[in-house]
Amino acid sequence: MKLMNGQEYVESLRQYKPDIQVKGKKVTSVADEPLFKPGINAIAVTYELAHNKKHQDIMTAKLSNGNVVNRLNALDFNHEDLRKKLEMTRLICKWTGCGQRYLMHDALGALAEITKMVDNDKKTEYFNSFQGYLDHVQIHDLTCGTAVTDAKGDRSKRPHQQSNPDLYVHVIEKNKEGIVVRGAKANITGAPYMHEFIVLPTRNMTEKDKAYALSFAVPVDAPGLKIIAKPAGRPEDKEAPFSSNFGQSTGLVIFNDVFIPWNRVFMCGEWEYAGKLAEAFANHHRHSCIGARAGLGDMIIGSTALMAEYNGLPHAEVAHIQRAMSELIRIVEGFYATGIAASVLGRKTVAKNYVPDSVQSNIGKLMLAEQVYDIFRIAHEISGGIVNTAPNPEDLELPESGELINEYLAAKEGVPTEDRINMARFIEDLTASKEGGFYSIISNHGGGSPEAMRKSAVGNYDFENQKNHIISKLKCFAKLEGTCKNCETCVNDEHECSDTREHGILEK
Amino acid sequence: MKLMNGQEYVESLRQYKPDIQVKGKKVTSVADEPLFKPGINAIAVTYELAHNKKHQDIMTAKLSNGNVVNRLNALDFNHEDLRKKLEMTRLICKWTGCGQRYLMHDALGALAEITKMVDNDKKTEYFNSFQGYLDHVQIHDLTCGTAVTDAKGDRSKRPHQQSNPDLYVHVIEKNKEGIVVRGAKANITGAPYMHEFIVLPTRNMTEKDKAYALSFAVPVDAPGLKIIAKPAGRPEDKEAPFSSNFGQSTGLVIFNDVFIPWNRVFMCGEWEYAGKLAEAFANHHRHSCIGARAGLGDMIIGSTALMAEYNGLPHAEVAHIQRAMSELIRIVEGFYATGIAASVLGRKTVAKNYVPDSVQSNIGKLMLAEQVYDIFRIAHEISGGIVNTAPNPEDLELPESGELINEYLAAKEGVPTEDRINMARFIEDLTASKEGGFYSIISNHGGGSPEAMRKSAVGNYDFENQKNHIISKLKCFAKLEGTCKNCETCVNDEHECSDTREHGILEK
Amino acid sequence: MKLMNGQEYVESLRQYKPDIQVKGKKVTSVADEPLFKPGINAIAVTYELAHNKKHQDIMTAKLSNGNVVNRLNALDFNHEDLRKKLEMTRLICKWTGCGQRYLMHDALGALAEITKMVDNDKKTEYFNSFQGYLDHVQIHDLTCGTAVTDAKGDRSKRPHQQSNPDLYVHVIEKNKEGIVVRGAKANITGAPYMHEFIVLPTRNMTEKDKAYALSFAVPVDAPGLKIIAKPAGRPEDKEAPFSSNFGQSTGLVIFNDVFIPWNRVFMCGEWEYAGKLAEAFANHHRHSCIGARAGLGDMIIGSTALMAEYNGLPHAEVAHIQRAMSELIRIVEGFYATGIAASVLGRKTVAKNYVPDSVQSNIGKLMLAEQVYDIFRIAHEISGGIVNTAPNPEDLELPESGELINEYLAAKEGVPTEDRINMARFIEDLTASKEGGFYSIISNHGGGSPEAMRKSAVGNYDFENQKNHIISKLKCFAKLEGTCKNCETCVNDEHECSDTREHGILEK
Amino acid sequence: MKLMNGQEYVESLRQYKPDIQVKGKKVTSVADEPLFKPGINAIAVTYELAHNKKHQDIMTAKLSNGNVVNRLNALDFNHEDLRKKLEMTRLICKWTGCGQRYLMHDALGALAEITKMVDNDKKTEYFNSFQGYLDHVQIHDLTCGTAVTDAKGDRSKRPHQQSNPDLYVHVIEKNKEGIVVRGAKANITGAPYMHEFIVLPTRNMTEKDKAYALSFAVPVDAPGLKIIAKPAGRPEDKEAPFSSNFGQSTGLVIFNDVFIPWNRVFMCGEWEYAGKLAEAFANHHRHSCIGARAGLGDMIIGSTALMAEYNGLPHAEVAHIQRAMSELIRIVEGFYATGIAASVLGRKTVAKNYVPDSVQSNIGKLMLAEQVYDIFRIAHEISGGIVNTAPNPEDLELPESGELINEYLAAKEGVPTEDRINMARFIEDLTASKEGGFYSIISNHGGGSPEAMRKSAVGNYDFENQKNHIISKLKCFAKLEGTCKNCETCVNDEHECSDTREHGILEK
Repeated sequence: MKLMNGQEYVESLRQYKPDIQVKGKKVTSVADEPLFKPGINAIAVTYELAHNKKHQDIMTAKLSNGNVVNRLNALDFNHEDLRKKLEMTRLICKWTGCGQRYLMHDALGALAEITKMVDNDKKTEYFNSFQGYLDHVQIHDLTCGTAVTDAKGDRSKRPHQQSNPDLYVHVIEKNKEGIVVRGAKANITGAPYMHEFIVLPTRNMTEKDKAYALSFAVPVDAPGLKIIAKPAGRPEDKEAPFSSNFGQSTGLVIFNDVFIPWNRVFMCGEWEYAGKLAEAFANHHRHSCIGARAGLGDMIIGSTALMAEYNGLPHAEVAHIQRAMSELIRIVEGFYATGIAASVLGRKTVAKNYVPDSVQSNIGKLMLAEQVYDIFRIAHEISGGIVNTAPNPEDLELPESGELINEYLAAKEGVPTEDRINMARFIEDLTASKEGGFYSIISNHGGGSPEAMRKSAVGNYDFENQKNHIISKLKCFAKLEGTCKNCETCVNDEHECSDTREHGILEK
Repeated sequence: MKLMNGQEYVESLRQYKPDIQVKGKKVTSVADEPLFKPGINAIAVTYELAHNKKHQDIMTAKLSNGNVVNRLNALDFNHEDLRKKLEMTRLICKWTGCGQRYLMHDALGALAEITKMVDNDKKTEYFNSFQGYLDHVQIHDLTCGTAVTDAKGDRSKRPHQQSNPDLYVHVIEKNKEGIVVRGAKANITGAPYMHEFIVLPTRNMTEKDKAYALSFAVPVDAPGLKIIAKPAGRPEDKEAPFSSNFGQSTGLVIFNDVFIPWNRVFMCGEWEYAGKLAEAFANHHRHSCIGARAGLGDMIIGSTALMAEYNGLPHAEVAHIQRAMSELIRIVEGFYATGIAASVLGRKTVAKNYVPDSVQSNIGKLMLAEQVYDIFRIAHEISGGIVNTAPNPEDLELPESGELINEYLAAKEGVPTEDRINMARFIEDLTASKEGGFYSIISNHGGGSPEAMRKSAVGNYDFENQKNHIISKLKCFAKLEGTCKNCETCVNDEHECSDTREHGILEK
Repeated sequence: MKLMNGQEYVESLRQYKPDIQVKGKKVTSVADEPLFKPGINAIAVTYELAHNKKHQDIMTAKLSNGNVVNRLNALDFNHEDLRKKLEMTRLICKWTGCGQRYLMHDALGALAEITKMVDNDKKTEYFNSFQGYLDHVQIHDLTCGTAVTDAKGDRSKRPHQQSNPDLYVHVIEKNKEGIVVRGAKANITGAPYMHEFIVLPTRNMTEKDKAYALSFAVPVDAPGLKIIAKPAGRPEDKEAPFSSNFGQSTGLVIFNDVFIPWNRVFMCGEWEYAGKLAEAFANHHRHSCIGARAGLGDMIIGSTALMAEYNGLPHAEVAHIQRAMSELIRIVEGFYATGIAASVLGRKTVAKNYVPDSVQSNIGKLMLAEQVYDIFRIAHEISGGIVNTAPNPEDLELPESGELINEYLAAKEGVPTEDRINMARFIEDLTASKEGGFYSIISNHGGGSPEAMRKSAVGNYDFENQKNHIISKLKCFAKLEGTCKNCETCVNDEHECSDTREHGILEK
Repeated sequence: MKLMNGQEYVESLRQYKPDIQVKGKKVTSVADEPLFKPGINAIAVTYELAHNKKHQDIMTAKLSNGNVVNRLNALDFNHEDLRKKLEMTRLICKWTGCGQRYLMHDALGALAEITKMVDNDKKTEYFNSFQGYLDHVQIHDLTCGTAVTDAKGDRSKRPHQQSNPDLYVHVIEKNKEGIVVRGAKANITGAPYMHEFIVLPTRNMTEKDKAYALSFAVPVDAPGLKIIAKPAGRPEDKEAPFSSNFGQSTGLVIFNDVFIPWNRVFMCGEWEYAGKLAEAFANHHRHSCIGARAGLGDMIIGSTALMAEYNGLPHAEVAHIQRAMSELIRIVEGFYATGIAASVLGRKTVAKNYVPDSVQSNIGKLMLAEQVYDIFRIAHEISGGIVNTAPNPEDLELPESGELINEYLAAKEGVPTEDRINMARFIEDLTASKEGGFYSIISNHGGGSPEAMRKSAVGNYDFENQKNHIISKLKCFAKLEGTCKNCETCVNDEHECSDTREHGILEK
């Protein structure tokens, strides 16, 4: 049992020899690849913060055997765990923009529930395999990528209907030792600098899709596994104060007949549960997204409050800046509130772990999916055009032009022009650059599209209770308008109405 | 100690002889006044529900001495109490539209904190008086109106600047037994059918406003107290299935030199605390408003889900109705989430009671203040024009026209036309009638205007923490871009940066 | 040829003996029925304004024969006519809330186009009948109701699929003289105080719905025609300064085997054109709705600007009121702009009359359908709670309470309390009463539901042009990245790319 | 008189020897500088389109002397000119994202009006100078940058209050030949590849700011004028299909004691008119912005419609994509409608040219300033995560990985994967890259901040008319409720009420 620190995580990557390509180049050492550095830094922060005394309560979890693990590698066992996990994602993302590693936490929570459920119903033994894998992950303090979204092909067709059968990951062979899988998962967050992948189905399935009802874990360097990755953040870009330090890679993860031993297989053919596993993951993960984006919100609130001051228009003194700031707070703390509510209203699963409330998770993720654009809008309204027009660093570095810029882009007296420009560039990086674009799209589509959230929120809502209340209310009113004067008011029972007690309510 | 039921509450009103006028008529018996019946019914529900076993956990509170009281009359002593109070307001308002009595709860919570605070600072003895009054309220299971909003006069001037000194309630005489007060409080919810009033200042004060820094309690029939009230709901209106049963009166409460004994005075001249008392009340009350309007939301979700089905367009089958329903849920459960968050993040006061988190209370109240209009919009989009155009009851009652209406306004087969029309009228009552107008305005301005919420949310937000995080982050980045390679990363301490440890994060 | 004035219109109603019922009572004289008075007043205004010199240019139209008619009874023959018609609806509704009579104008415009189109395609003679009817309407300066929305029954089924064949109006007999029709039209605006009805199909039809593809005109008192009407506005309500004077009735119009002579039949069986006629009407009418609701907006902008001043918080001095006012203007003038654009971009029909641009008409109507709720929200934020809590008139009339109210509800010095209360009541009437509810629902569903607008806007949009531009652009970029250096840039032709001229654009 | 084509414009830049720096490098030939190429291309398009027969009507204007000029260099002399100018900006920006040159058009329109106004009031001769300059611009078919925004310094202080007097451009010397100016203008669009600059004041002034009330024209290479510029678009970026071809530079333009001859001075000391000139420019320019952003909207509508098809989810078949598309159309055509309305309602100036309606210009610019973020949100919702996660071009170019990508990122059958990826990259370029960030910020702050628009819209609105209508209406109602039965209804005159005619309206 160990809690690695950031440096140990980076070193640990050297033990793997994955097949990775980025911008057309084969990567020889992930730990040393500059194009992945911002992503590796972000993961490293999740290890470092677990050593930070101030944050240990939310960054680590004590197992029932007394061992302490990084909370990102632990299941949630009560409402408090859910809240701490939410705070943890906010903290991590306040530092890194997107800490990425919480996807693993969410996959583990979903697998715990659904492997247990399948075992209960089908007399399988997946939960044991899962438990063994959980121990492995915790003992080695691993970071696992979560591979959910398949290549998908024609979006109007199910897996088995695709003309190319490999567009969803599927099992092509089963033997005594294990299974062989083929296909590709797309848009996999942090793919190149993971230790392993946890693979989950991306949607509900029919019996004909049986071969696609598949979940397993696999090391990043398993034979046949290939990753075509994108750079993380804006590495080595001087105009990217934030995303040259912290960013995210995504990768296309291709399974070219990869062998998976049975003890790493968590679902194989139980098509009735594919959708449940996808949805269980979604509930955990949308909850994490809420914390994550609140962390982005923290950075934007802090930086725009400073920018307003540097411009000489502090929110406390300027009405329209104050109004804008109130909207920023309302949005960020507003969707964060749904994360708290999802925690508090979370439900215990058959595996005894806890899952966030699905209505709240979904509406919260839906809010941020749409409101991240409002956050950018408000950040720009508060900060001004300099976010985009601040001169390039090379001009600042030359003495003559540097001096002119210092003179003419000065604003609030006492604030160095350089600080104002740095803040502008920081805000540009977060909201008006390729990285800003990434944040908007990951908020909009990460963890499912807005429409997926709408459908889940409606699908999981308890309409029956709401409708019954109205029906009994109208029945009661109708009665009272007639002869009934002494009924047991509906207040006392939402579904029945009888005539036995004086109460003084609703009589005509 | 007793828990009255609805009927007992109604009877208890007979013990008071208040000076009340409604629509130009002197009211001789409040308990029997038809124009107040819907309001009295709503209060009665708050008594009835406390006897309902299913709801006792949230409707009642156990005092430290073991006595059980209606939770509306109790202080909150932990986060759980705050959550139950939130649920209680939702339940009450799901039944009654607006249960009114929670204003008392909120006033008691604010008085506990501020009387203690003033006593601590000024060596006064207000907390004792408050404690005595709290006992009185609990022992007799009273319903007290909360009188906050003064007449105000010219809104650009402070109390002492008004040309008419009576536009804010003020003390005009102090003697050994007590004080004499004069002025008027406007828009007082439920005024005519209260047992007593708790009077609080409506704003912050300066030293010159000292006479207006005033808080006290007074029975509804104290000599000199006069109420000019409005009818509650839409009494005796056949087209008002809901608000002929449940509604709210508001009243102009005039203090024409009313005597208040010292043991009922909770602030008198401590002008520095007037704003604090007003704000403490606001924090409690905005939290209640969140639960209250979620209860209205419950009624609208239930009734529009039914209306869609009656029209033959159930949300589960019709895409644009499903979308509308997802927005309704997002709004109602979205602002309700802020109520949960405000509970969970609530703070302990000097009096040991708990107050909801002010940022969450304020943004939640702001959300509902603006979104109640969206709720109405969506309810109308889902329900259709029949909400407004359903024929009058008199036409339904005549056999010939009744039959024609039954034939031609039928929609979904199997649903009686009468049920469809009743549902339309119910939705009209809540969203497109004088009562609907009341709900929108009470949501918008009750508990303070939207602008008050915006200012409070910004004013109570911890910007320093957010700004410091950014400053330290940028400092750290700057350093790393220079010489530092082995620094103690900012991750380990948000405000300092030194050079003592290898860590692998953020190095160039 | 004549232009009646208001009084003459009222008198003209005495010539008809319709079968009308309101609130269970048979109406003996429409002209004298107090429950219809506000609706009759509103129509009368459309006659009066045509005599007002200041407004004659927009209220009247000169026919090609030199005769002058009320513009509401005229076709539009150019873009200017469309703009004047838009202004006319704004003017009328600024006076009356909803002038109702423009529905006739819109039906006439649609019939001109579609009868001509059917004649062209089918060698029918409907256009002649239409022309004859138009002359009749213009000569007698009539007001005709427009009956579009059928009873509809189960909304998931087409007309011929309904279990009750009468749920859509259909022809049950044809003979030499004419046809006999049966069924009901619902929610018919202004039904009881019309001279005649113009009946249009409500949707597209299939061949099996042939009997329902029907359009005709009929006097309000034709044998077999029965109207079950609702009161117009809030007649005789002292708290309704506006809607006791101006309002709208709606009626269920039942055709109990009504005979229609051939010269009043405009479609009978041409099912392929039913949808076209419905849509043509919609294009005209949604354009009118834009003007109409801008007129409501005018009243709300004017009254809230005054209310803010009476409260002592004029928008020119108070930042958050100014912000609210800017939103009000943005909404009202924003959707009005789409009406202007729809006029300017309007299209000439086969009948040589003009129809507003359908994309603009639809998005404008969609805007107001949703934004009327925002208008109410902003009106309330600006005006304050007094909109709802102003004391009843009866209390103001009693000397003692009147004096107290005058003292305590005074605000801005110099403004009589009575003016402030009247303004509050006026705003309540428009935005927070049954009439306010009517305005919101008529905005939301009148002229079609929001979803109908969304579908029409998308359905009528020229996507091909937009897509082709992108395809050619990307093709051009691709080419330039390769070998092409001297191409005729796409700028010169959006769809082709060749290599003939030096131009300096887009070369690498 | 000539109409240059694109190539001639590029060549014409070689006649100037400006002092320009970009990314720390001195630019030796603007025409050949790769970092400016996308900006130069965009300007070139404005010349090319004037030669395109299809567009000549809107791209060129005929002067009263019969000469034809590029419309961008012409004044508007009627409503039709305003509409064509609006269409022209839409067309140009549909091609280039931002054609930049319309700023000149807007400056010329403003100068015409205000120089005439000052001459009329002050007996100056600025209009003659302006007319001479206009001839010069038209004869040589120039592109002039418009320099409005000063460096500004402390935003809470006026020009003369700044500790550094140079933070606003001011006159430091006047002599017989002309004036000498010092200071800097910031964020100047297209600065490095302009022929000349037109300098306007950025705000209203007081008498003490007299030296800052300054307007003049100056060639880009005048001695003492220095530009520190940013690259235009994303030059030479393989992942930028659009902005490697078309983009915008901005520059800091420094006036280091630059001499301006009197015939190029348009204001010098007339401080009362500084604000008027700034506002006149804003009215013209906000109108142009509406057309410009509609052009961006065109590109996004076209590309997302294609993307949806390539994904296999065409809007015509998928409800939530259709809904998203309806919102996109509503936004783009909605704010474009305000541009049409501003044209149609435009006003003639003292110089006989036309200026767009200020209320409509301001609300339209405000709409797009806020809604560009919604456009991006909807574009992302429709397009999916691939906008951000499409593999890098280098991976596509390698045969092995290219093949894998082609297999796994295929979607709709028949659509080449490459087309899908190109479309994703095009959409990323416009909405989720540094260029996308530029478009959002230029929309938000270009032509003035959202708050400036709000204040202008409210400031220019005719509240008096709206208020008078309400006052007369309420007066009329009041009268009618009393004795008046036969009054001349308010309908006949909005401000008076007398008793002379029977009319039947509004009587009780």
